Amino acid sequence: MSNARVLTGPEVAKHNSRDDCWIIVHGKAYDVTDFLPEHPGGQAIILKYAGKDATVAYEPIHPPDAITTNLPPSKHLGPVDASTVAKVVQEVTEEQKRLEKYRAAKPSIDTVISLHDFETVARLVIPEKAWAYYSSASDDEITIRENRMAYQRVWFRPRILRDVSTVDWSTTILGQKSTLPVYISATALGKLGHPDGELCLTRAAANTGVIQMVATLASCSFDEIVDAAKPGQPLFLQLYVNRDREITRKYVQHAEKRGVKGLFITVDAPQLGRREKDMRMKQVGDEGVAEVQRGQKVKKDEGVARAISSFIDPSLSWKDIPWFKSITKMPIILKGIGTAEDAILAYEAGVQGIVLSNHGGRQLDTARSGLEVLVEVTAALRARGYLPNPNFEIYVDGGVRRASDVLKALALGAKAVGVGRPFLYAFCAYGQEGVEKAIQIFRDEFEMNMRLLGARSIDEIVPEMVDASALTSHSVLTPPDNLFHSTYQPLIGAKFNESKL
Amino acid sequence: MSNARVLTGPEVAKHNSRDDCWIIVHGKAYDVTDFLPEHPGGQAIILKYAGKDATVAYEPIHPPDAITTNLPPSKHLGPVDASTVAKVVQEVTEEQKRLEKYRAAKPSIDTVISLHDFETVARLVIPEKAWAYYSSASDDEITIRENRMAYQRVWFRPRILRDVSTVDWSTTILGQKSTLPVYISATALGKLGHPDGELCLTRAAANTGVIQMVATLASCSFDEIVDAAKPGQPLFLQLYVNRDREITRKYVQHAEKRGVKGLFITVDAPQLGRREKDMRMKQVGDEGVAEVQRGQKVKKDEGVARAISSFIDPSLSWKDIPWFKSITKMPIILKGIGTAEDAILAYEAGVQGIVLSNHGGRQLDTARSGLEVLVEVTAALRARGYLPNPNFEIYVDGGVRRASDVLKALALGAKAVGVGRPFLYAFCAYGQEGVEKAIQIFRDEFEMNMRLLGARSIDEIVPEMVDASALTSHSVLTPPDNLFHSTYQPLIGAKFNESKL
Amino acid sequence: MSNARVLTGPEVAKHNSRDDCWIIVHGKAYDVTDFLPEHPGGQAIILKYAGKDATVAYEPIHPPDAITTNLPPSKHLGPVDASTVAKVVQEVTEEQKRLEKYRAAKPSIDTVISLHDFETVARLVIPEKAWAYYSSASDDEITIRENRMAYQRVWFRPRILRDVSTVDWSTTILGQKSTLPVYISATALGKLGHPDGELCLTRAAANTGVIQMVATLASCSFDEIVDAAKPGQPLFLQLYVNRDREITRKYVQHAEKRGVKGLFITVDAPQLGRREKDMRMKQVGDEGVAEVQRGQKVKKDEGVARAISSFIDPSLSWKDIPWFKSITKMPIILKGIGTAEDAILAYEAGVQGIVLSNHGGRQLDTARSGLEVLVEVTAALRARGYLPNPNFEIYVDGGVRRASDVLKALALGAKAVGVGRPFLYAFCAYGQEGVEKAIQIFRDEFEMNMRLLGARSIDEIVPEMVDASALTSHSVLTPPDNLFHSTYQPLIGAKFNESKL
Amino acid sequence: MSNARVLTGPEVAKHNSRDDCWIIVHGKAYDVTDFLPEHPGGQAIILKYAGKDATVAYEPIHPPDAITTNLPPSKHLGPVDASTVAKVVQEVTEEQKRLEKYRAAKPSIDTVISLHDFETVARLVIPEKAWAYYSSASDDEITIRENRMAYQRVWFRPRILRDVSTVDWSTTILGQKSTLPVYISATALGKLGHPDGELCLTRAAANTGVIQMVATLASCSFDEIVDAAKPGQPLFLQLYVNRDREITRKYVQHAEKRGVKGLFITVDAPQLGRREKDMRMKQVGDEGVAEVQRGQKVKKDEGVARAISSFIDPSLSWKDIPWFKSITKMPIILKGIGTAEDAILAYEAGVQGIVLSNHGGRQLDTARSGLEVLVEVTAALRARGYLPNPNFEIYVDGGVRRASDVLKALALGAKAVGVGRPFLYAFCAYGQEGVEKAIQIFRDEFEMNMRLLGARSIDEIVPEMVDASALTSHSVLTPPDNLFHSTYQPLIGAKFNESKL
Repeated sequence: MSNARVLTGPEVAKHNSRDDCWIIVHGKAYDVTDFLPEHPGGQAIILKYAGKDATVAYEPIHPPDAITTNLPPSKHLGPVDASTVAKVVQEVTEEQKRLEKYRAAKPSIDTVISLHDFETVARLVIPEKAWAYYSSASDDEITIRENRMAYQRVWFRPRILRDVSTVDWSTTILGQKSTLPVYISATALGKLGHPDGELCLTRAAANTGVIQMVATLASCSFDEIVDAAKPGQPLFLQLYVNRDREITRKYVQHAEKRGVKGLFITVDAPQLGRREKDMRMKQVGDEGVAEVQRGQKVKKDEGVARAISSFIDPSLSWKDIPWFKSITKMPIILKGIGTAEDAILAYEAGVQGIVLSNHGGRQLDTARSGLEVLVEVTAALRARGYLPNPNFEIYVDGGVRRASDVLKALALGAKAVGVGRPFLYAFCAYGQEGVEKAIQIFRDEFEMNMRLLGARSIDEIVPEMVDASALTSHSVLTPPDNLFHSTYQPLIGAKFNESKL
Repeated sequence: MSNARVLTGPEVAKHNSRDDCWIIVHGKAYDVTDFLPEHPGGQAIILKYAGKDATVAYEPIHPPDAITTNLPPSKHLGPVDASTVAKVVQEVTEEQKRLEKYRAAKPSIDTVISLHDFETVARLVIPEKAWAYYSSASDDEITIRENRMAYQRVWFRPRILRDVSTVDWSTTILGQKSTLPVYISATALGKLGHPDGELCLTRAAANTGVIQMVATLASCSFDEIVDAAKPGQPLFLQLYVNRDREITRKYVQHAEKRGVKGLFITVDAPQLGRREKDMRMKQVGDEGVAEVQRGQKVKKDEGVARAISSFIDPSLSWKDIPWFKSITKMPIILKGIGTAEDAILAYEAGVQGIVLSNHGGRQLDTARSGLEVLVEVTAALRARGYLPNPNFEIYVDGGVRRASDVLKALALGAKAVGVGRPFLYAFCAYGQEGVEKAIQIFRDEFEMNMRLLGARSIDEIVPEMVDASALTSHSVLTPPDNLFHSTYQPLIGAKFNESKL
Repeated sequence: MSNARVLTGPEVAKHNSRDDCWIIVHGKAYDVTDFLPEHPGGQAIILKYAGKDATVAYEPIHPPDAITTNLPPSKHLGPVDASTVAKVVQEVTEEQKRLEKYRAAKPSIDTVISLHDFETVARLVIPEKAWAYYSSASDDEITIRENRMAYQRVWFRPRILRDVSTVDWSTTILGQKSTLPVYISATALGKLGHPDGELCLTRAAANTGVIQMVATLASCSFDEIVDAAKPGQPLFLQLYVNRDREITRKYVQHAEKRGVKGLFITVDAPQLGRREKDMRMKQVGDEGVAEVQRGQKVKKDEGVARAISSFIDPSLSWKDIPWFKSITKMPIILKGIGTAEDAILAYEAGVQGIVLSNHGGRQLDTARSGLEVLVEVTAALRARGYLPNPNFEIYVDGGVRRASDVLKALALGAKAVGVGRPFLYAFCAYGQEGVEKAIQIFRDEFEMNMRLLGARSIDEIVPEMVDASALTSHSVLTPPDNLFHSTYQPLIGAKFNESKL
Repeated sequence: MSNARVLTGPEVAKHNSRDDCWIIVHGKAYDVTDFLPEHPGGQAIILKYAGKDATVAYEPIHPPDAITTNLPPSKHLGPVDASTVAKVVQEVTEEQKRLEKYRAAKPSIDTVISLHDFETVARLVIPEKAWAYYSSASDDEITIRENRMAYQRVWFRPRILRDVSTVDWSTTILGQKSTLPVYISATALGKLGHPDGELCLTRAAANTGVIQMVATLASCSFDEIVDAAKPGQPLFLQLYVNRDREITRKYVQHAEKRGVKGLFITVDAPQLGRREKDMRMKQVGDEGVAEVQRGQKVKKDEGVARAISSFIDPSLSWKDIPWFKSITKMPIILKGIGTAEDAILAYEAGVQGIVLSNHGGRQLDTARSGLEVLVEVTAALRARGYLPNPNFEIYVDGGVRRASDVLKALALGAKAVGVGRPFLYAFCAYGQEGVEKAIQIFRDEFEMNMRLLGARSIDEIVPEMVDASALTSHSVLTPPDNLFHSTYQPLIGAKFNESKL
């Protein structure tokens, strides 16, 4: 709403109740009275700023255009004279004090030597709420850990005495050049952990020749991210399909227009999982954090994940695939396949690829790992003569922490591997530089491990280089005989003379 | 004994010795001299109240009619003038003080997000004796834990891109409608953990459309429970068969008359197991708690479980099945089958169903889990052409904590799943409301997991949705090389600068 | 040496050097100068008593006749006038003080409810040296624990609805009646843990109808033990074969004359194992404890086990079996068989039985458990038509702690099971009464478990009652990814309000 | 450079900057200005001694001739008058103080009873940097631990009643007599842990009849080691192949001339692995330690391992084997084979043997253990008729801690077993005496275990003596259900009366 008159702080301050609620964001006033019940983060957090400048709370967790997109123009009240607005003094919480201390004591990025280190650091320098949202997975969090364990069940069969003076781990993904057989997988709400959010990924990807998959639920807007990319820098788009297909159509076509090279449709999330760490965190605070996504309304209040997911359409089905093909020329990839049966259906539906994924363990708990499914899928597709096919690529994600993990997936038939949380934790800990360091670690590890494996290029990574015979085994221990174990006294080694120590 | 004269406190107080022992319960006096050696809880606890009002000790652990049922009418001495009875002052024990503190600090029910939470809470807000009785299992408690572990050996194979806008997890059990494919399995002595005892279950079941199986050893009387049910609310009955079959006949026929819809005869408990936690607990206190059941005498004194079980007939055999069929028209289900052989015998004996169960791990330790037996049983019954059969249902119980567990059992051939302890712990922690919350959690989890699994109704849950290949494996670790492990120094991640923390 | 003159303390006291060393034991003097280097427990402990009364040190660890048997008559110096002998004041060590305290705080025997409890108690009420000798096993102590773990890999398949009003677990072993399918296996040096030593076993066996196998290395002499037995009480004898076969011949024939019913020749101990706990214990003290066995000389000084074993003949071989058959009519059993190959050789050598045993894990570490070997052995003997044979019995020992373990071994083909350490710990903790309590626990468990298994007598325990499919599996974990596990944050349950606790 | 004039301390002291840097080592001055950037240990440590006597820092980690070999003669400035040189006072660091304390409290070597003990001791008495270099392995250190775990998956099948009066565990390796079926495998940089470095091994090998494999990266020079050997004492040589083949040719031919009996070419290290413990250690100190090897230049600075490895030629391939055969008559063995495919290629290339090895877990992480590979290799070679062949020997290394481990490898087809770290730790802890004690422990264990196994000589160790059925299994646990495990309360044993303790 174009309002010629500039408002003043005192004027806005009068509208400070549930029934009449204005707030100021980025120097403009908005009437959010009607929006209150629809706010994904709950009313409480807005009401805290009723009649006041809410920018400080709004900023870190919303794309700049979220409020203008979600409020009808009639609620845009126009600019406020900054000199008349009382400065909002945010109290410094105990958590913020703790975070400041840890940020000051943060290990130098030079001492980071593995992807695990980013997680170690991130956990202590980001808000608990962010950590809960990022690290959580569904139910008992068995699948998220199984994703990692699966890689431990595959062993290398290294070849020796090959001239490995030079090794090359670059590849193509959907025809796009990539300096690594790894892409940055979509993760949501990056600003919870770093003020630059997903832009850290975009900029690091530009500098390193790696491809980023942009998330529907990114806390930076799609255009911000594309704008931050270098000319010609390939990007993929992860898509949650909206109940309102028109919103989805516009979103997809806008992405294509802006040059996105692949559309990854998430198919394993008709509803977002129950993530108990996230749910518990919601309980301890008094406010909700959330992302207002693409104009739809959300009602639930059960942790960040569920707050932001109500727009996702649970009716999405195979019948929708032709429609997607009709609205875009981008390659279509189905993200979240978990069985050979669905891989076959996907192939027959004419898409360009699949991601064997369980959504980082955040959806159906005790679903199998992508790596385990990979063996089943490649066998089934080969049995039908569908593979090899240069126009159909298989990706895997979940649990990757080492270049050696990637090499195992490649040996078993993956074209590339998606890595999500480690890059997220990298920028939470060290911003863009962290992501670049993560990619450098991958490079060092690829050089090392390809040499030691005897593979000079991605083509030379063959199934015989791994022993995956244990991959499909699922060991669960028989409960122990505690009485026996508590009476057994373990052996100990030679003893130093304690009186001299 | 109808005694016109009203007794006075001082009169009763004279009978305060082992050889002449009267007590007052609910305002009436009883001569329990002859009953002393038969009291399942031991003589000591009664003698403590010899000549006094024992109501405060009697109340929490006996059905109201226990004393009148167990004592011959000649020992009923009639009403006592309340104004003449010295008030019994119960000393407040250390345990009671501790419980009060924990009850005050109890987590809000709103923060309960999984069935596990009820157990976490219950353990700290109920008497140790109750916890020992409820949580204990036989010998080394391997089977009780294996029951849970078995579910961890089954993995999902989720299907995607099915329209899961609406999902429905209601079903029928023995022809009765149930809003969940779960029934409340029988557990004993509920009043140990909550003053309302099993009525919490009955009332919650009424409100949620779930079926309760009433326990023979409930601390509320059968009729109290039935009276608490809503009109038309289906109930099942769990039966321990008495050495005196006449008692059993009356009990069963009374149940049928009162509308019970299924008779679950326990066949895995010719003698109740040695439950060491329970036995140890008995040792630390000076008093026994017990339930006087259906008029039989008990002699042993080895924990609650064995105290209350002496009436159970160890001679019960297949020969008795025709007799049961002759005394009731209720469907008969054998509860406690553990092999394919016995499942076949049960089918051929013409019963309407079986529960694959090891009694929550409370009977034969290192017996296999019901879930594992399910695979063996369905294969054997199918091999003989006995399945599918709409008039023969298979249930499983033990170890269920998640809707996902239930879905696994259903995929493997179960019609429904019995859940005992979790509902028990739910009412110990929060009464009827706890049970309703537990059922709400099941609902939330069913909605989520059925969507993620791609099953819109119970019918769509098929064997292909699970990978149960590891179910029959039993891993026990080779004892570790402690000297090696004690010299190995694990890797650690990047270090924060400790001087700044 | 018959010496008419009675010696005096001062006379003996003059002989107090390494070159001239007399000691007094049980009121008589001995010249041990020449014996010093041969003492299995080392010279130091004797020299501590040179010229003094050594009875207090001698008593607890030697049979009364050890000194007279081991010293030539010419070194027997005859009686000493007690009134002239200075009383040896034993200093009270820190360990003795600790033991006194623990003995005073010992749990009442009424609170012992499983065999494990005896071990829990014994460990704290016997000298460290005794605990080290008893509890130790060879090398990394993997086999001793594997013995127990093997039972955890066998699961029950219980049968229901059999009339189990009465169950009977009595049997015969080598034709001798036994109230349990369990015999007391030989363990050495009982006096280290209890002043009555192995007599506790003999007396308890008499009272309970159980058969004791007497150990060659018992700290009570063979005759003491036989004298303590009731008339007709069956005993077996465990035999270490001496390098001097004449000693062995006399020993065996003496045993037969005294009524022993079975000769168990140990065949898995040509040399006693390296038991590191025992070796380390030797290092910390300044004195050796040992048993002087049957007149042979020992030289080594590496823990109790090796000190006492040098007389054992490593040349013992299959060629010796006919000789044993020629010197005795007792049934001959080979104790320590570990493969099907040797079981076949034993059968063909015409012995009456075999014990599948690894010597309680004290000999070859990473040898398999007797239970695992049982499956291999029964299959091989059956394949050759050697089984069933009423004149050839198979026993198993090692790792048994429950009646349920015994039932598993019986189901897999054992005639009876040997139990050693648990009975040893029982008398260390509670003397004869402890052993009787242990047997009572077995009885209670047999009653319970046979009922729950649906077996009314030993004959009804059949292979189909167990699932032993995992018995031969040996799981060792892949080393964990510590960095991953250290960054994973486990789920926690609902939280109590800590400010109220 | 032959310089007639003797320099003085003050003269040298003037050259104390980065642009003009002289140091004194062993009484002679050197101009290291140009060498500074090439120093594997970094410039910092040299600059600390610019213009000063650096002997104290140089001595412990370089062979005496390292400086003369690496600097061109023109930089050799000649002798310095010792009386004019200021004595360098090394500050005593906190670590040195700690080490002194631990060295004083070191357990007596008499109390060492297993190879594990050396590691327990070494870890606390050597500098952290040494421990990090020695103990580290690549990436997640899974393979280093798996090497040990593999032995735990093989079980013995011992034979009884064989006359084992005498047992003999001597053998030949490449035709050389060895008193053990074990050789001392090459480990680098021994002086980091002990001032005598690898000479401890050489001297102990001489005294015990064991064969040492000399490491290319030994901190004692090759000639020092050979000079320390007894006449006729067999030595093997481990070879890293240099990018400059001429250096390698000279080195090999010099070794042959000095009597080396076997050339073990390392084929699994085209680049040395990323060893994170070692890398992290580099970060905490301010100085690098390193070995200047054979005249090549190194540039990297990522832990000791990578600093010293840049000379290794990653182009080494099968095509080089004929050249090696052309330059030496020594038997050639390829060290680091990890698959049957490469074992076949090696055999066909005409070498005399292979070492199945993963370089002690220091190269490709999650490569399989040598023991596991052994089964695959012997099967493949036998299938092609290549085995048995007296001129082709197979060795295994990695994870051996017990004679029983060696016996398992021999039973599965190895001719001998290489043991590296345990001997290294032995001399770190106790010098030459430690190595001799380690060999004595092996002897004791071989005697014991061969007797118990029923094998009188190496020939009698046959495949049937082991059950290796679990060797190729790789168990990784399904992530645990933490909520369940945290609510389960383990059984406990009988309780002592705590008020009396």
